[in-house]
Amino acid sequence: MPTTTTALLVLDLTGTMAFALNGAMTAVRTARLDVFGIITLGMMTALGGGFLRDILLDDLPPATFLDWRYLAVAASGGIIAFFLGQRLDRLATPINVLDAAGLGLFAVTGTLKGLEWGLGVVQAIILGVVTAVGGGTLRDVVLRQVPAVLHSGLYAIPALVAAALTALVVAGDLHLVPWTIVAAAVCFVIRMVGVRYDLHAPRPRGAREQE
Amino acid sequence: MPTTTTALLVLDLTGTMAFALNGAMTAVRTARLDVFGIITLGMMTALGGGFLRDILLDDLPPATFLDWRYLAVAASGGIIAFFLGQRLDRLATPINVLDAAGLGLFAVTGTLKGLEWGLGVVQAIILGVVTAVGGGTLRDVVLRQVPAVLHSGLYAIPALVAAALTALVVAGDLHLVPWTIVAAAVCFVIRMVGVRYDLHAPRPRGAREQE
Amino acid sequence: MPTTTTALLVLDLTGTMAFALNGAMTAVRTARLDVFGIITLGMMTALGGGFLRDILLDDLPPATFLDWRYLAVAASGGIIAFFLGQRLDRLATPINVLDAAGLGLFAVTGTLKGLEWGLGVVQAIILGVVTAVGGGTLRDVVLRQVPAVLHSGLYAIPALVAAALTALVVAGDLHLVPWTIVAAAVCFVIRMVGVRYDLHAPRPRGAREQE
Repeated sequence: MPTTTTALLVLDLTGTMAFALNGAMTAVRTARLDVFGIITLGMMTALGGGFLRDILLDDLPPATFLDWRYLAVAASGGIIAFFLGQRLDRLATPINVLDAAGLGLFAVTGTLKGLEWGLGVVQAIILGVVTAVGGGTLRDVVLRQVPAVLHSGLYAIPALVAAALTALVVAGDLHLVPWTIVAAAVCFVIRMVGVRYDLHAPRPRGAREQE
Repeated sequence: MPTTTTALLVLDLTGTMAFALNGAMTAVRTARLDVFGIITLGMMTALGGGFLRDILLDDLPPATFLDWRYLAVAASGGIIAFFLGQRLDRLATPINVLDAAGLGLFAVTGTLKGLEWGLGVVQAIILGVVTAVGGGTLRDVVLRQVPAVLHSGLYAIPALVAAALTALVVAGDLHLVPWTIVAAAVCFVIRMVGVRYDLHAPRPRGAREQE
Repeated sequence: MPTTTTALLVLDLTGTMAFALNGAMTAVRTARLDVFGIITLGMMTALGGGFLRDILLDDLPPATFLDWRYLAVAASGGIIAFFLGQRLDRLATPINVLDAAGLGLFAVTGTLKGLEWGLGVVQAIILGVVTAVGGGTLRDVVLRQVPAVLHSGLYAIPALVAAALTALVVAGDLHLVPWTIVAAAVCFVIRMVGVRYDLHAPRPRGAREQE
């Protein structure tokens, strides 16, 4: 259905914009990068998860590389963040909000693409999580931070929830557009609650002794 | 022959378990990660080398991604390591032993897969080494350590030896199962001797001046 | 035309040698690596950009992995750098010169390959830049430095200029060999002027406050 396809494209481009803004703002905040470094980091954050997804699916060249709309949205996000860079001290909140939004949207669209390409349910859910966390992981690795997915309490969990809900929506043959937006929103809320109250998944016993 | 195939699958899954335990234990030991971070790092260490191998071979989606046994073994290794995490101070030895075991097993199975897919001997040996060191390199990069393959004296060499012996076993048309296990064992012994006696390959002259 | 093809192969192998020497010299200079670490880092720097290019193009296994000449040139560069390692204090200049040469040559050959494979002009230019900066980015990530492409004023820009000039050469149906060498040379000159005079692209306003 063209309407559904268009809706999913809009969700995917929204996630791309969210991650491009997030990556570029993180670049402005944590490192002394120039305009090209900022745009590059924004594009890497926005497109990295989709590239990993398409390599794992063998959909090469990656769809988001061939489609100029993804390149344009990702580059625009970087440019916008560059010009907002003067308000550095106010960036922490939007960085987290945009990251949580991209996380949910990419977990949904990554899982849907995996199912469309005939992966098993478990594999499609893993693919959704990889799509969601991949761009941010590349961002953190090149900025020399431990990737959020490894240490940041509720980061992998909300992506996993959104991916699993998406698989349920498809299995239950529900309407894709409203219900996958619900899945992305659940991810967003869990992530933001985790950030607000500094929640963490369990750590190994004895880990506290190290501190 | 199904028996040989089964034996090689067992070797490959054993290497996967060794690297999953190793990656997750390293996560417990060197960083304050929660349960999902630990499992993620275990899976990345266990599956990363095989993913790189399959990308280079164009065997996509990666065989180890489609086969639930690899995913289950890799995830189990992470979960086991999480519950062993309370005995942090005793982890150094098993971490090294598991790493050496995975190194040898993956060097063998990576080289065999390269030869099966028609690569030249040199390329198949390089592929074996990439399979063996790939997962640990990803582990070290996301934990912000210089990858073991770059600095840890005898790390690339034992993998190279196991890969070259595997190529000889195939060229000599010897029985795969006993002889490739010998190749993996030789790698294991060289690596453990290197760890025990802190052996290093030659460093450039003048490098000492920097210290 | 065989002559043109040969000329382009020579350019590509020259870039491979430049990056292998550069990566291995950087390894000698910034980290205490042994001979295998140094050769590995040289090969990673030399071949990494081309591997990324070929993954994005779906030309797998990568052409530079199957062709022994690339492997031999990349390994030789690492070995040469190892033996030059005793003159550590004089390496800063050749490291920069080799990096600038590889940058221009790979931007040209990456863009040409993208156009040959039917990519759009924008995508081919991005591919040229990825080919040019990819190897150095891998080098910096494993050595735990912020990648040069993100912070080093004039690094992405000269690669972008060479890639765009190459696209113009093809669009204008000019003779490939002299004019793409001009494109690579323009990149080289811009990069070296940037290094010499410490030029930078604009940084976000307010970024100075952080220092």
